[in-house]
Amino acid sequence: MQAINDETYMRLALQMAEQVQGQTGINPAVGCVIVKDGRIVGLGAHLKRGEPHAEVHALNMAGAHAAGSTVYVTLEPCSHYGLTPPCSDRLIAEKVRRVVIAAVDPNPRVSGSGVRRLRENGLEVETGLLEKEADALNEAFRKHILTGLPFVSMKTASTLDGRIASRTGDSRWITNESAREFVHVLRHKHQAVMVGVNTVLADNPKLTTRLSVPGLNPIRIVADSRLQTPETAEVLADPQAKTILLATAAAPEDKRRRLEELGAEVLVCGDGEKVDLRAAMRLLGQKEIGSILLEGGGRLNGAMLEAGLVDKVYLFFAPKIIGGFAAPSNIAFSGFERMADAIRLEEVRYEQFGDNFCVIGRPRYADAGDEDYGEEE
Amino acid sequence: MQAINDETYMRLALQMAEQVQGQTGINPAVGCVIVKDGRIVGLGAHLKRGEPHAEVHALNMAGAHAAGSTVYVTLEPCSHYGLTPPCSDRLIAEKVRRVVIAAVDPNPRVSGSGVRRLRENGLEVETGLLEKEADALNEAFRKHILTGLPFVSMKTASTLDGRIASRTGDSRWITNESAREFVHVLRHKHQAVMVGVNTVLADNPKLTTRLSVPGLNPIRIVADSRLQTPETAEVLADPQAKTILLATAAAPEDKRRRLEELGAEVLVCGDGEKVDLRAAMRLLGQKEIGSILLEGGGRLNGAMLEAGLVDKVYLFFAPKIIGGFAAPSNIAFSGFERMADAIRLEEVRYEQFGDNFCVIGRPRYADAGDEDYGEEE
Repeated sequence: MQAINDETYMRLALQMAEQVQGQTGINPAVGCVIVKDGRIVGLGAHLKRGEPHAEVHALNMAGAHAAGSTVYVTLEPCSHYGLTPPCSDRLIAEKVRRVVIAAVDPNPRVSGSGVRRLRENGLEVETGLLEKEADALNEAFRKHILTGLPFVSMKTASTLDGRIASRTGDSRWITNESAREFVHVLRHKHQAVMVGVNTVLADNPKLTTRLSVPGLNPIRIVADSRLQTPETAEVLADPQAKTILLATAAAPEDKRRRLEELGAEVLVCGDGEKVDLRAAMRLLGQKEIGSILLEGGGRLNGAMLEAGLVDKVYLFFAPKIIGGFAAPSNIAFSGFERMADAIRLEEVRYEQFGDNFCVIGRPRYADAGDEDYGEEE
Repeated sequence: MQAINDETYMRLALQMAEQVQGQTGINPAVGCVIVKDGRIVGLGAHLKRGEPHAEVHALNMAGAHAAGSTVYVTLEPCSHYGLTPPCSDRLIAEKVRRVVIAAVDPNPRVSGSGVRRLRENGLEVETGLLEKEADALNEAFRKHILTGLPFVSMKTASTLDGRIASRTGDSRWITNESAREFVHVLRHKHQAVMVGVNTVLADNPKLTTRLSVPGLNPIRIVADSRLQTPETAEVLADPQAKTILLATAAAPEDKRRRLEELGAEVLVCGDGEKVDLRAAMRLLGQKEIGSILLEGGGRLNGAMLEAGLVDKVYLFFAPKIIGGFAAPSNIAFSGFERMADAIRLEEVRYEQFGDNFCVIGRPRYADAGDEDYGEEE
């Protein structure tokens, strides 16, 4: 039996928000609970971009009960016209008495203006309840709003000697079913999934979301500087998701045309030999892709990390030892000279999946300042 | 508050046995509790090879209370003259009423004979209470008795990309203080510690046990085929422990003499280019070294694993990513072609040390039969 207090209601709002993560696209996942005279009178979540915000759904459910009620909402109600009218106006119009907010809007241009508007209209407003949990829920939204870049989660699956395949390239399967299912949950929760062309050439994956219930398929992104993706590749043949190929100016024009005819979108990222990953992230961010699950091989993972573009890692390990001097590593890049300069993970968490486990954390780059995203503004 | 029953008393006996692990040398760690009329009247553990067994210490403490008592002992009392007289005779002489035994003697030549002797003399005997725990405690004793080979525990400390040093060889420090302290506990609990000569050349370690209280120093073993260990090396200069060098017949005679003059023992293990590791283990087993903590670099670890000589692994990971294409791996050997053939760990356990963690398990080699140690008998 749990207590009943502000926190209980906010937790329910957070739980609803967590469940809709992945279906709001570039928009934040938000939950809302409305309480009047000791009863829940409204529940809502933002379900899809362009559709009503969480507060609006909850207020619609509450109807006349909204007057004099307390509204618990995981993110500050908006005060501006976006794709929908401002929620703060609606809260005011419905004569809500008190609004409890977990996190203020991370966008510095509008942050606090919803709170201000509510207060100016006589509503009691509190902020910061379970703020950390709310922030974690919208880590991708926050990164994109502040930097224009997508939030990148890197996933690897390796043996205890850090290998993602045997020396002959065999990689089926390293991790167990329960760990692999969680990867599909991650695909569902991200707007896009990204691999290198070598993965396409070696494994020809579909990169779709397979769960025991229907899931959402992320946009497929392939880092493919010279456009080597075969026209018969599953990422093109399987129609369940859109595919974006990241190439360079050096990629052959005719191949590009043929791939575009097959429905792929080609983004030119620099004119070097390899895809300019930072430029690529900037272009993807401009296309309103706010979160990417990076499922690269060691080289792509290493290059993304080296460029400081990875925000979170999910490193799965199976209790196996495969060996092989040249067997590919989970992360491969030129690396650091001194152990003290290694990329450290922060907020590290370990999750077990049967006899497999996953290390989850946020890379802290040596040259990062106090404000992670400061450099991009 | 815990229950009071047979299991409670046996657990106490096991706890005493666990604490003396490391100080009994090749002998098993055994604990004993004697109970009479609801009171503990005797406590004992086998403290040192050649000294009284656990039962004798406990019976001495119990004195006249032993008559009619119940004796809880973690390992079957011996029935033969070894370095000390048989414990079963003493239990009979003291008129003990009932003996509860966790594990029977793993030595097939004597297993069950202590139980039989006690029963023939009218004592009530039960076996198998907390047997798994008792067996785990004496995994090294069991391996040595059954195969003549030492039990080898392999310890590695690596980053999440499986590296034990940076590309320039820097390895200080990978894991945190609490993980490193546990490695010293492992040294205390093993009869010997083993490294390759490259570790001696690169790090010049003492390989002693450093704890916040005095600990026991394991015998130092260096795999050093051509006897490259410098005469000034800490493993020779530091007098706290004996040092054994594993060489081949090709090692220079004069260097061998000089190292022996410095107190080192040199074992010739085959006449190949590298130390014949299986021959080495056989020689070390004959010298009554029953447990070895392998703290090798990737190559030695890999070779020992490849030879099927590793019985248990302690793989420490720090939440760091160091990179480096040629940075050394925790385990390096030619490896397997198919992921399905990888060495799997069994009885896997994860232990956290702050933000570091350790994977503990037993390698199951693909060609092993049902009886792990059968091939050596």
